[in-house]
Amino acid sequence: MRAARAAGREVFGYNRSSAAVEAAGADGFDASNDLAATLDRAAREQALIVVAVPMPAVGGVLGEIARRAPGCPVTDVVSVKGPVAAEARARGLDARYVGGHPMAGTAESGWAAGDAALFEGATWVVSVDEGRDPAVWRRVAALALDCGAVVVPAASKEHDDAAARISHLPHVLAESLAIAGAQGGALALALAAGSFRDGTRVAGTAPALVDAMCEANSEALLLVLDEVLGTLREARAALAEHSSTSALTAAGHAARQELEHRGAGRKVIEGIVPGEPGWLEALREAGRAGAVLVALPGEDPR
Amino acid sequence: MRAARAAGREVFGYNRSSAAVEAAGADGFDASNDLAATLDRAAREQALIVVAVPMPAVGGVLGEIARRAPGCPVTDVVSVKGPVAAEARARGLDARYVGGHPMAGTAESGWAAGDAALFEGATWVVSVDEGRDPAVWRRVAALALDCGAVVVPAASKEHDDAAARISHLPHVLAESLAIAGAQGGALALALAAGSFRDGTRVAGTAPALVDAMCEANSEALLLVLDEVLGTLREARAALAEHSSTSALTAAGHAARQELEHRGAGRKVIEGIVPGEPGWLEALREAGRAGAVLVALPGEDPR
Repeated sequence: MRAARAAGREVFGYNRSSAAVEAAGADGFDASNDLAATLDRAAREQALIVVAVPMPAVGGVLGEIARRAPGCPVTDVVSVKGPVAAEARARGLDARYVGGHPMAGTAESGWAAGDAALFEGATWVVSVDEGRDPAVWRRVAALALDCGAVVVPAASKEHDDAAARISHLPHVLAESLAIAGAQGGALALALAAGSFRDGTRVAGTAPALVDAMCEANSEALLLVLDEVLGTLREARAALAEHSSTSALTAAGHAARQELEHRGAGRKVIEGIVPGEPGWLEALREAGRAGAVLVALPGEDPR
Repeated sequence: MRAARAAGREVFGYNRSSAAVEAAGADGFDASNDLAATLDRAAREQALIVVAVPMPAVGGVLGEIARRAPGCPVTDVVSVKGPVAAEARARGLDARYVGGHPMAGTAESGWAAGDAALFEGATWVVSVDEGRDPAVWRRVAALALDCGAVVVPAASKEHDDAAARISHLPHVLAESLAIAGAQGGALALALAAGSFRDGTRVAGTAPALVDAMCEANSEALLLVLDEVLGTLREARAALAEHSSTSALTAAGHAARQELEHRGAGRKVIEGIVPGEPGWLEALREAGRAGAVLVALPGEDPR
């Protein structure tokens, strides 16, 4: 809400917590804990509805939206996209739904943890699955751009696979490394320095948050876990049989170089107009190539 | 050499590279590329010899020391301790050798990369295998303390196991994570943020350096790799069968907390006098408990 209002938009919100609603009200925001009234108002005003609840609560909220505001465009900010898209489809909202995932956040929660500048310069995934409505897509992308983010278009499945690799797997490996280190007792921890500290940092995240992320994306995470188990088994075999880790380190170093050089020449998507023939496939292809949208066609680049 | 001289010690050195010897000479250091002459001088002056070469060169250097300066106390700064101790034993230097490993360094090398303050506040492992000579042990520990480090006493095997856990495994996991991320292509790298960046940081290390560390400690690393493969397989099974990662995240979070609280109450070793009955076992036990030596008995704590 803070970022959207800072961008000059009219915003109103629902939260089931009275404390959150009061805190938002005290800051001058238009908030309510009456879901039905909020959705009725959204339907009247044809508002863009942004669902920002944990995955297990998504189905129930989308059900209420389908009942009271079925004509409103709907997006979300949940960290997986495939399961949310499936819930929207199951509730007949497919034609009004376009998923979103801003890659920004903090470990804190609650109204006080909000920050109008949170999305400045962030990447915000906007899903481009087949069947999306170009008008809804424009509204969702415009919200992301207004909040200061750049838009990465991606199919839900491709987003979830990427998130498993660059967000959920890092957490699983950090937890595993922390366990192996502590298994070495006080001596090992006394000798631990930068590589161990960096490699275990995100194991300091509250376990319930990590569980929620990983469990909601289990299908993609399982595939990536199998990949990394294969890499580690190969590395183990090479070390045991040939006393060598050079295949692993050559590939790992090259991969890390790709990340380091990524920022250098970020491509900007231009000339793809939502609604024109092939626009969804064209955006998916651009996203796959690491390109980002910084403005909607017909508007000045920001 | 820089740190020892900054501590007020007389130092002289050998390097096979004429460029390094010249650079050290230009900085006013007493350096030579005549190994025989340097070892003859060490023998005359009963100098403490510090071997600072990569593991594959250790055997040859210890052979020269055994020929020309067999009475000198010898230590080293190599990142594994068991294999160096075995080389010393094989060359009849067992009674004069006490291994060392300062847990400090940079990714750079060469004379210009030296830094007299490198060891300030670092931990410096001094080995306490059975059969160590207390007089040699005191000289090696005194060098570490003079350079500003604290001494962690550890048996070679215990050091190597700990190093596999907190230094070599982090590198292997970082390489594997980088590979899995890059496998997701440009889209995955475009979405990568803090957790992936931190988790892959040490994959930016030159592959040859990582290989040298890991391969020299392959025995301990293989055991730890099997442990982490077991942890990951269990996590995979729990996710596939019960859609849960909570066992992994609970254990990983607790382990990371241990690291974070480690600094709080670091125990200081006092009252163990090298040479008194049971001193080696007493130091091993203290090191296992994460305790450090900040002064030799009979001297003021620094």
